[in-house]
Amino acid sequence: MRPMPTLLVALDLAGTFVFALSGALVGVRHRLDLFGVLVLAFAAATAGGVLRDLIIGAVPPPAIADPRYFVVPVIAGLVTFFWHPVVTRLQTSVLVLDGAGLALFAVSGAFKALEFGLGPVAAVLLGGLTGIGGGMVRDVLVSEVPTVFRAELYAVAALAGATVIVLGDSAALPAPAVAVGGALVCFGLRMVGVRRGWKLPTPRP
Amino acid sequence: MRPMPTLLVALDLAGTFVFALSGALVGVRHRLDLFGVLVLAFAAATAGGVLRDLIIGAVPPPAIADPRYFVVPVIAGLVTFFWHPVVTRLQTSVLVLDGAGLALFAVSGAFKALEFGLGPVAAVLLGGLTGIGGGMVRDVLVSEVPTVFRAELYAVAALAGATVIVLGDSAALPAPAVAVGGALVCFGLRMVGVRRGWKLPTPRP
Amino acid sequence: MRPMPTLLVALDLAGTFVFALSGALVGVRHRLDLFGVLVLAFAAATAGGVLRDLIIGAVPPPAIADPRYFVVPVIAGLVTFFWHPVVTRLQTSVLVLDGAGLALFAVSGAFKALEFGLGPVAAVLLGGLTGIGGGMVRDVLVSEVPTVFRAELYAVAALAGATVIVLGDSAALPAPAVAVGGALVCFGLRMVGVRRGWKLPTPRP
Repeated sequence: MRPMPTLLVALDLAGTFVFALSGALVGVRHRLDLFGVLVLAFAAATAGGVLRDLIIGAVPPPAIADPRYFVVPVIAGLVTFFWHPVVTRLQTSVLVLDGAGLALFAVSGAFKALEFGLGPVAAVLLGGLTGIGGGMVRDVLVSEVPTVFRAELYAVAALAGATVIVLGDSAALPAPAVAVGGALVCFGLRMVGVRRGWKLPTPRP
Repeated sequence: MRPMPTLLVALDLAGTFVFALSGALVGVRHRLDLFGVLVLAFAAATAGGVLRDLIIGAVPPPAIADPRYFVVPVIAGLVTFFWHPVVTRLQTSVLVLDGAGLALFAVSGAFKALEFGLGPVAAVLLGGLTGIGGGMVRDVLVSEVPTVFRAELYAVAALAGATVIVLGDSAALPAPAVAVGGALVCFGLRMVGVRRGWKLPTPRP
Repeated sequence: MRPMPTLLVALDLAGTFVFALSGALVGVRHRLDLFGVLVLAFAAATAGGVLRDLIIGAVPPPAIADPRYFVVPVIAGLVTFFWHPVVTRLQTSVLVLDGAGLALFAVSGAFKALEFGLGPVAAVLLGGLTGIGGGMVRDVLVSEVPTVFRAELYAVAALAGATVIVLGDSAALPAPAVAVGGALVCFGLRMVGVRRGWKLPTPRP
């Protein structure tokens, strides 16, 4: 992987931190021990990117090889373990940060797939997987049906953001503008979905 | 991967469609939203092949890189989402088609493993994994114990079909004949298992 | 992979056998059929190593390509399927053997990660994953929260053993001594944890 600009790395680690908080909270809610809470923090923060990297052949995945992607979830996990009432009280802010993390992961996932030569449909799928994969693995590890299968425009937002990246890239627009545009679309859709309670339809009974 | 002959591709996409129907039906039964239904359709149709490809190092897997393997499950998922009563009523036909999909995936999975230089035992295992992996991931995603652990000669049929491929290949028989033979063994075993309710033994209490 | 010395292979297969017993027992307890019991035996014995190999790019993983890693779990699964009352009665011995398997897998996993050029933090993580990954997949396949999230110093022992390997390797100590030291630390911690019922803290309610 080519070295990412400092800002992008900072944003990526911020997304990692927020996703790790969500994983650790699920672990606390299931009364796991300290190790279990840390594993859920790490899985929620990194599984999406690791799955994408295995699929495109980018091994070893940075989430394993770069110690920062280990240290950040551990800190988030410890914070949640010891002060989970505080984290729970901040839930609204966490929801906003989580939307930001989703946007960033969807964007960076789609870019990375394009960089590795995947086509447009695959890049959209892999951007979506990068955004939602961590939450899916987190939920499977505690025997719950992934919330993303029922959440307010969560996956749709990730796929929309990734689609912006793919379209912008094929139009040869400048990458930073495309990245900002994709992230805003994803974040915006998710926030509107949460605020208005917009959900995808479920099947007729 | 060398380009597959048209007939094989058509059969492979037919298997993908049928497996996607089974995934989407499970999603409908669990009252997931539209996205969840589509994910289960996609997972059931492609997870077996993706796991096999990761294990043999054939990345990116065609199921991700080739848009047809995305479009077909999406169509199957949409059909099931909107007309699931019809799909449910056709269940017997779906069961037959699912047996055909199983046969095809077991055969193509074993062939691909041999092509990538795996040994006979590994090729049988990977043929079986290609056939049953999608259903296992589908069930894990909705917190159910995989039905293949209790179904009528489902995995046994896949492994038997893959075994025919490996034996025929080591005897240097012509590939098309071996493929047809393996598929018939798998499909036949599965159909007999369903019709007679043959199951593997369970442990004594 | 460079050819492992005979003793190491023998120990590795012993660990495989014991982990397979634990997987098969879980399958019997869930009343799976014979195939399900064998899959759980195979998954518990090999999933940790397979995940590690996918992450470091060592494909195809020996656990798939080398038939011994197929035959040993099958034997353990058949033994458990037919004589599970005996295996259950031997549970204490199985617990000791399982601790030995954990130690061996953590040590060999950390060594293999170092061999493939991973850094120290990644090698500790991958040693831990090799030790506990099989049990996690085993539990997810029967819709249970992995016991390692609540067990007595199980993961901690694996990570401690892997840490000894990484430290010893960076101090350029002779590999056999480092291996024995790491295995003893892991096995000792786990046995003390079991005997005294030491557990990691859980979050305050």
